[in-house]
Amino acid sequence: MQASAADAVADTATDTVTDAVAGAVTGYSDRLGTVHPFGDAAAEQRVRSDDRNHVFHSWSAQAQINPLPVAAGEGSTFWDYEGNAYLDFSSQLVNLNLGHQHPDLVRAIQHQAGRLATIQPSMASDVRGELARLIAGVAPGDLNKVFFTNGGADANEYAVRMARRVTGRRKVLSMYRSYHGGTSTAISLTGDPRRWANEPSDSSVAHFFGPYLYRSAFHSTTPEEETQRALEHLENVIVLEGAPTVAAIIIETVVGTNGVLVPPPGYLAGVRALCDTYGIVYIADEVMVGFGRLGEWFAVDAFGVTPDLITFAKGVNSGYVPLGGVVISDRIASFFDTVSFQGGLTYSGHPLACAAGVATFDVFERDGILARVRDLGERVIEPEIASWLERHPSLGEVRGRGMFWALELVRSRETREPLVPFNAAGADAAPMAEVAAACKAAGVWPFTHFNRIHIAPPLIITEGELRHGLAAIDAALTVADRFAG
Amino acid sequence: MQASAADAVADTATDTVTDAVAGAVTGYSDRLGTVHPFGDAAAEQRVRSDDRNHVFHSWSAQAQINPLPVAAGEGSTFWDYEGNAYLDFSSQLVNLNLGHQHPDLVRAIQHQAGRLATIQPSMASDVRGELARLIAGVAPGDLNKVFFTNGGADANEYAVRMARRVTGRRKVLSMYRSYHGGTSTAISLTGDPRRWANEPSDSSVAHFFGPYLYRSAFHSTTPEEETQRALEHLENVIVLEGAPTVAAIIIETVVGTNGVLVPPPGYLAGVRALCDTYGIVYIADEVMVGFGRLGEWFAVDAFGVTPDLITFAKGVNSGYVPLGGVVISDRIASFFDTVSFQGGLTYSGHPLACAAGVATFDVFERDGILARVRDLGERVIEPEIASWLERHPSLGEVRGRGMFWALELVRSRETREPLVPFNAAGADAAPMAEVAAACKAAGVWPFTHFNRIHIAPPLIITEGELRHGLAAIDAALTVADRFAG
Ligand SMILES: Cc1ncc(COP(=O)(O)O)c(C=O)c1O
Ligand SMILES: Cc1ncc(COP(=O)(O)O)c(C=O)c1O
Repeated sequence: MQASAADAVADTATDTVTDAVAGAVTGYSDRLGTVHPFGDAAAEQRVRSDDRNHVFHSWSAQAQINPLPVAAGEGSTFWDYEGNAYLDFSSQLVNLNLGHQHPDLVRAIQHQAGRLATIQPSMASDVRGELARLIAGVAPGDLNKVFFTNGGADANEYAVRMARRVTGRRKVLSMYRSYHGGTSTAISLTGDPRRWANEPSDSSVAHFFGPYLYRSAFHSTTPEEETQRALEHLENVIVLEGAPTVAAIIIETVVGTNGVLVPPPGYLAGVRALCDTYGIVYIADEVMVGFGRLGEWFAVDAFGVTPDLITFAKGVNSGYVPLGGVVISDRIASFFDTVSFQGGLTYSGHPLACAAGVATFDVFERDGILARVRDLGERVIEPEIASWLERHPSLGEVRGRGMFWALELVRSRETREPLVPFNAAGADAAPMAEVAAACKAAGVWPFTHFNRIHIAPPLIITEGELRHGLAAIDAALTVADRFAG
Repeated sequence: MQASAADAVADTATDTVTDAVAGAVTGYSDRLGTVHPFGDAAAEQRVRSDDRNHVFHSWSAQAQINPLPVAAGEGSTFWDYEGNAYLDFSSQLVNLNLGHQHPDLVRAIQHQAGRLATIQPSMASDVRGELARLIAGVAPGDLNKVFFTNGGADANEYAVRMARRVTGRRKVLSMYRSYHGGTSTAISLTGDPRRWANEPSDSSVAHFFGPYLYRSAFHSTTPEEETQRALEHLENVIVLEGAPTVAAIIIETVVGTNGVLVPPPGYLAGVRALCDTYGIVYIADEVMVGFGRLGEWFAVDAFGVTPDLITFAKGVNSGYVPLGGVVISDRIASFFDTVSFQGGLTYSGHPLACAAGVATFDVFERDGILARVRDLGERVIEPEIASWLERHPSLGEVRGRGMFWALELVRSRETREPLVPFNAAGADAAPMAEVAAACKAAGVWPFTHFNRIHIAPPLIITEGELRHGLAAIDAALTVADRFAG
């Protein structure tokens, strides 16, 4: 399918997306002239055997996985060694906001590599300072300083550390149904099953329920009720845990992996008010939703609140070079003017990573990325997937914003029983595996989690690609419908 | 000073080191033709103000630091904006094993950036598999699989996690006088003051004393005695902590930041034997000493032991792109064939980082890096610094191996009182600050910690540069001598 005339906005975002949708990969080659190894069975075999023999994979039983060898990527598409194209509706791990091989980011990395690949954190670097200034420039309120890390987990670790030091308190409250990273404080904050095998790592964490109207923990029936009751619950938890023991509350501004849970109106403002009342640091985890995923620089902008600390990673440079960080309010930063901050890492503020971040700002601004995300979200995605509710009995709810949406699949709209059980594996998870396989067979790589499909393509996806991918998911839902009654 | 004729070995290592020693920076420009901003006061001012206003620094009180703006780096030298050259005797944070802007690493990064900058951990990538195979190829024993991380701290976090899962035990023993990283389990493992502000993060850690003959915790007088007593102490700790509760012992093969403490003969073999006896996982932290620092691929090779897990970062790709990891024995890896490993991160096995790692292997092999490290260590560094003992009353002991040495400075050789107190700050630390300032004034950037100067230049340093730097440190020691009697 060719991009339609309505693609005007979309097409300004990148001039390099090949016609992925049509699978027309002939002659595709990288910028250094290497012809990609499509059809090179020996190369594929080598990749598979090196991977099987020597690479230990995350979150897996090693003998039970079969990683797909990837030969190439460009724009919203990546290819396997047989030349099959996959439209990347998960933006890898929802980090590839500017898509594969964006020429501006590639150029920035190549240029910085030639200038000065790295310099230690205790020295001053032009590109590190520039990126920090750019981030401060778009951060809300008085969040003006940046502590850089390598990724999202360590950003959360160090944000919590700052909150603990500033408040002199130790406990942190985080949500059930959340993900905050893999290192030990970050995994303790996490409110999904990945935490279970690692308990207790940081024992000073307590979990609370956030708003989730479709499966309300508070028996609410309206968004207003959900907001009010979720805040009442949070205040109860604060009081019963002991407000003077609570250093921070950490919340994904929109819960990502655990469901694209968009907070109902007033919820985050209510969290802000509770934090003010009880002297608690409000940490917004925007590792997944910052840098454009919602059509805003920071997702909190969509909700009009200013946290004390914002953590980020992924979209800051589309993960082309590992980078994360914490944006810090003046109040907290100035506390550490005279008190030493006791945290750090060898690659804090890595110049190569920061150069890709600076280029990200250039592209966002030049190509109007935020506006196009809002436009495509409202004009294309939302009406399209909302219309599926009429045709797919397996579709319980659709929700989201910008380029970030969830389809919640159910066995029954009546009971809302999930299509597969919570944390299902093996045979129990088969219905979702079949849906995912149907998407892949149609050339669309979906993000699936539990009983949900998320829609999270690169922000530079063309309207044509977006519509094509949505059509493939629409078709794949007929597989889910077979399990729904 | 020009490199001497004896530089033959050294000069094969790199063809790009400009005449840093002479400070001849005229005409120095990067590979993309940008003339460096030497003397550009406005550029320097911009870097300083962005840094001061927007960058939050590690391990510091923000108002009490004054980070040096770095304009350029090449080989073993970096330059500030005034064009002052510093011979980097600390290899940044002991990560820059192949020096600044090594052309092979730069090229590898630029090439991979143009091919495929990133792909998620759950897919298979050629360059990730290749680096894992290369690492497995030089790792001791049956350490054949690699779990990649972003840096050293998370490598240690995940190594501990594997050990806990495999043993079903929770406690970890680590050394006083050690550094294992900043995230919460890693900082808990750490045996230096950086841990204090963060306690207790991971409460299942107990610390023991390692061998350190110059300040023996065991009142030993010979290396043999120190080995025997340190092992007896470790066994006592194991028994009294409860062997069935101990998952792992983690040891820097040569303690880095906390003193270049080279284990005496037999110590690490004894640790290996204790781990075998008590069913404990032996984790070697080689974040600082792996990849050539001691003239071996892995530092354990110098001591003839095979740990169960080795953690690495830094030297694997000289930190040009953030990368770390855990090398895993077949026994532990195969445990996770059917049991899911519960840990992970978005950038595990990052292709750009791995490409720089693969290039590192090429350079090490082509240029005989390991042999030259051993040669320069034995032939140049050791005899030179040993000779200083005759002239500098402030020099208590010199120790080290390969390109990794410590000068332990004292007020008195008799009492061994350190030149500055343990963890000294401010006025108490002034003598060391003066020594460091003298080195910098002579164009050598030293690594100092407590009462020690470490010698840890890039492994590609020319013999001329090395001798020049040593001469500058020799001269700076006269400053220390003023405090010693
Ligand atoms: C909301 C959120 N926080 C933190 C993280 C952890 O980031 P990283 O994998 O870079 O450590 C993630 C990763 O998916 C995330 O989605
Ligand atoms: C021995 C050792 N382990 C771990 C680390 C932590 O590595 P990183 O700073 O990359 O987290 C360091 C850093 O200096 C180290 O020297």
